[in-house]
Amino acid sequence: MSTPSLKHLIDSLRCLPGVGQKTAQRMAMHLLERNRQGARTLYIAINDALEKIRHCQRCRNFSETEICDICSSERRDPNSLCLVESPADLVAIEQSTGFRGMYFVLMGRLSPLDGIGPDELELGQLENRLREGGVDEIILALSSTVEGETTAHYISQMAHNFNIRVSRIAYGVPVGGELEHLDSGTLSHAFAGRQLV
Amino acid sequence: MSTPSLKHLIDSLRCLPGVGQKTAQRMAMHLLERNRQGARTLYIAINDALEKIRHCQRCRNFSETEICDICSSERRDPNSLCLVESPADLVAIEQSTGFRGMYFVLMGRLSPLDGIGPDELELGQLENRLREGGVDEIILALSSTVEGETTAHYISQMAHNFNIRVSRIAYGVPVGGELEHLDSGTLSHAFAGRQLV
Repeated sequence: MSTPSLKHLIDSLRCLPGVGQKTAQRMAMHLLERNRQGARTLYIAINDALEKIRHCQRCRNFSETEICDICSSERRDPNSLCLVESPADLVAIEQSTGFRGMYFVLMGRLSPLDGIGPDELELGQLENRLREGGVDEIILALSSTVEGETTAHYISQMAHNFNIRVSRIAYGVPVGGELEHLDSGTLSHAFAGRQLV
Repeated sequence: MSTPSLKHLIDSLRCLPGVGQKTAQRMAMHLLERNRQGARTLYIAINDALEKIRHCQRCRNFSETEICDICSSERRDPNSLCLVESPADLVAIEQSTGFRGMYFVLMGRLSPLDGIGPDELELGQLENRLREGGVDEIILALSSTVEGETTAHYISQMAHNFNIRVSRIAYGVPVGGELEHLDSGTLSHAFAGRQLV
């Protein structure tokens, strides 16, 4: 009752995160019934993005040029290097903090169990960058998971070899979070990480 | 911090129903970081669908041929005609009922306040089809809204002119619905529509 092209469209929409069969069906119907213009725009945008967006040679963030805007900016402080797991994390930090240094995107995290070691993450590129000199401080903005901890540990070691200061963003009670509703992991982490005031 | 192509992709993804800024961002990042192959497939599927999918000349459902599979099938009963508002409704009925007749897709519903009258819905096409003869029963599978009621009333009148029997699908308590959690509109509708057992 649905045509092969429609079936194909529905299946393809399921590659989007959080989109199951029902939602994909609704999306396909919506595009075809009510928003063919939007579908056309989306088609062009996907093609454009696939063709133009690659990774910055220096920080590995998405970029349409060989070196991205942040890495080539003269207004940013090259002494401070923030390490994030993904381009999405970089965007989040840019949007919510006033950080004016440089970034390095790991594109993942160390996970020996899944066979992702330093070579898979190409951490040699980071080591080369540190060897070049000019970086005074590394800020680790990694997720608070076992893999994030492993990655943080590995990179701290690497940085110490070059005598570079390493800091980690704070993990604890989120702003607006009430203690009684907090999960015990976060709470014990926050408790252990208490600071003198 | 995000490239023009990436911004364009995020904006375009927002044409999908139920997708806001945050979700669009997550989808775009996912496609570029982890599923470029999926993005390529989606791109081809959208193009394909836009090029190939048009409306069946007879029932107006989506079709890749001039007359859709259902309308050209000899196994279906041409005497019974089910009227639905959209191709999505047709799919829902095909998937959950054993209906073996034909369909006619209204592609909307009468809504005089929004300037949608019989001409805008091109109900002349339906009238021509009824005039041709061969239809014994019309089943109205329309939504239970003011516009749905208006449409049902208009089409009933049209069918009566051709001496065609008209029925409507039942509106009432959904299967598994508990009365105490039901909205009052549905409950009063179900009460008024009680049937002898």
